[in-house]
Amino acid sequence: MASSLPVVTVLCPAGVDGADAPAGLDTLRDRAEIRTVVAEDLADGLRGADVLFLWDFFSSAVSDAWHAADALRWIHVAAAGVDKMLFDELIASEVVVTNAQGIFDRPIAEYVLGAVVARAKDFAGSLSRQRDGVWEHRETRQVRGSIALVIGTGAIGREIATLLRAVGVEVFAAGRTARDDDPDFGTVIASEDLAAHVGRADHVINAAPLTPQTRGLIGAEVLAAVADGAHLINIGRGESVDEAALVEALDSGPLGFATLDVFAAEPLPADAPLWGREDVLLSAHMSGDVVGWREALAEQFLDNARRWLDGEPPVNVVDKERGYVPRT
Amino acid sequence: MASSLPVVTVLCPAGVDGADAPAGLDTLRDRAEIRTVVAEDLADGLRGADVLFLWDFFSSAVSDAWHAADALRWIHVAAAGVDKMLFDELIASEVVVTNAQGIFDRPIAEYVLGAVVARAKDFAGSLSRQRDGVWEHRETRQVRGSIALVIGTGAIGREIATLLRAVGVEVFAAGRTARDDDPDFGTVIASEDLAAHVGRADHVINAAPLTPQTRGLIGAEVLAAVADGAHLINIGRGESVDEAALVEALDSGPLGFATLDVFAAEPLPADAPLWGREDVLLSAHMSGDVVGWREALAEQFLDNARRWLDGEPPVNVVDKERGYVPRT
Repeated sequence: MASSLPVVTVLCPAGVDGADAPAGLDTLRDRAEIRTVVAEDLADGLRGADVLFLWDFFSSAVSDAWHAADALRWIHVAAAGVDKMLFDELIASEVVVTNAQGIFDRPIAEYVLGAVVARAKDFAGSLSRQRDGVWEHRETRQVRGSIALVIGTGAIGREIATLLRAVGVEVFAAGRTARDDDPDFGTVIASEDLAAHVGRADHVINAAPLTPQTRGLIGAEVLAAVADGAHLINIGRGESVDEAALVEALDSGPLGFATLDVFAAEPLPADAPLWGREDVLLSAHMSGDVVGWREALAEQFLDNARRWLDGEPPVNVVDKERGYVPRT
Repeated sequence: MASSLPVVTVLCPAGVDGADAPAGLDTLRDRAEIRTVVAEDLADGLRGADVLFLWDFFSSAVSDAWHAADALRWIHVAAAGVDKMLFDELIASEVVVTNAQGIFDRPIAEYVLGAVVARAKDFAGSLSRQRDGVWEHRETRQVRGSIALVIGTGAIGREIATLLRAVGVEVFAAGRTARDDDPDFGTVIASEDLAAHVGRADHVINAAPLTPQTRGLIGAEVLAAVADGAHLINIGRGESVDEAALVEALDSGPLGFATLDVFAAEPLPADAPLWGREDVLLSAHMSGDVVGWREALAEQFLDNARRWLDGEPPVNVVDKERGYVPRT
C-alpha cells in the first residue's frame, strides 16, 4: 500500500518484546510513515525508505542491506563515532549521514576528569587496600599544574580541555594539523609528531574518532615515549591503541596507569590481559552514558527529523571521507 | 648552659635513625637554639623553650609535658586540625597556637572533587567488575547540576566549593550561623538544622574541624535524612560521623556510598565493618598529602618562625576556644 508520507525506518536493537524502539517516535506519525525494524529485517525496511535512524548504533547491518536502499536520502546515527557503519558505497553515495554530536561531550569529559583525579589520588590503590584490609598512608599527586595531552580536536576533546582547564590542568592537543592559536587548546601538535611530544604529558587522553589516520596511532613508539608513570585514558576507540604495546608499556614501563572505556574487541574477551590488573581501570564502553542518555539521543533525532521534514538541512552532518563532523 | 637565643623545640616523630626532623631547620640556627625531640623527651625539651613546633602533628604529648612549659609563648602545629592537641590548660594559657591552614586546602578539595566524580561514574563498580572479569554496561550520572552540601565553612570547605562550582556542581554549606550571602557558598544553613536540609544534596561533604559542636554531628538522624543513594564524603574528622549509624545507613538506606579519609580510630581497626565494603572508598588519612607536603609544612613553619623572630605576630592563629582559625 503506497503512502504519500516520507518513510522513516528505525533500526532498533532486538529487545525482550520485539524491537526496542526510541521514545517519542509517535510524535512524527502525522508527518511520516514510521517503520521500526531489527537488523535481520533491515533490507525490507529500507525499501522505499527516505530516512534511516540507526537507533541500534553499534550495528554494521547497513552495508548488508544497502542493496535495498532505493530511496534513501539521510541516515542519522545515535552515536558520536560512525566508524562502524561507514562503508565505501555509502561514502560514495549522495546519502547524508548525521550523528549524535553534542550528547556525549560533557558526560565523557566528566569521566575523563574523574579518571585524571582518581589517578592523581590513587583511588584504585585505596580500593585495593580496602578490599584487603590494609591501612597504608601514601603521598598522592596534585592535579593542578599537571599536564594533559588531548588527542583529537573534535567537540568531545574540546569539552575535555575546558573541564580540565577549569580545575587547573594545563592542556595541549594533537590533531591533523599543528597550530598555536587554537581557541580551546592553544597549542595543537600534529598527530604524526605524537611520539616527539607525548613525553610532556602526565595524562594522555585519546578522544579521536577512528579513521585510517588514528587507527593504531597510540602504538609501541608513542607508548615508549610517554613520561615515566604517565596515565593513558582512552574514551575514543579501542583500535586507536595497540593493546599489546599498552600491556608491554604497563609491564615494563614507562606507562604507569591506564583508564580504558573502549577496546578493539567489545565486550573485552575473557582472556584479554587487561582484566584483573591493578594498574588499569576499565569500564564497559559507557563513559558518555549518563542517566537520560537514551532519551536525549531520541530527542536529538526527532529534532533533526523535524528539520528535515520542514525541508531544512539536518545538523551534525558527517564528512563521510574524514569520518567525523568537521568543526564549523 | 644558658643561651641568649630564643629556644625553638621541635617535636618530631621517632624515625628509623632517631628523630625525623623537618627540612630547613638549619636556616634558623643563627637566630634560635633548635632542639629536636621525640615525644618521650618532650618535657625536657620544653623547659626554657619559647616556641614549640609540633612536626609530629598527630601527637597528644603536649598535655603530658605541659608542666615543663615554663617559658612557652607559641605552638605551631603542622596540621589543619588542632583537636588532638588542645586541652584546657593550653586553652586557658597565653600561649598562641597556629596551624598549617592553606597547605591542605587545594589537595583536599581535589580529593573531594575526585570522590564526587568517581561516585557519579561508578569507578568503584568498574574496578570491582574488572577484578572479577565482568563486562557490564551501566548508566552513570552527570556531575554537572548535581548538588553538594559542604559542612564546615573554613578554608578547606571554601576551596572545595570553588572547585566543585568550577565543574558545574551546585553547592551550599552548613556552618555555625545561617546566612544567604556568603561569598563562596551563597546559602549557609545552620549546622543544627542539618537534618532538615541534608536531603537536598547528592553529595554530603564533611570539612568541619572537630569541636564540641561537630562531634557526632553526622549521626543517625542526619544519615536517615539524606537523599536516596546519597554520597557521604568525610575529609574532616572521623569523630564528626557516627560510624555505626553510617554502616546502618549504607546497609538499610538511604545512603548509597561513602568516601572516607578519616575515622574515629586511626589506623582503622582490622575488625571495623567498613573494611571490604563495595559501597565505601576508604583511604588512610591522606587526602591532603600530595608529593611535597612535608616540605611545604616545614617551609610554612620557617616563614612563621622568621616573622616571630622579627617581632611580628605569627599568622594562622587558632581561636583556642573555637578550635580553628576564624575567617578574617
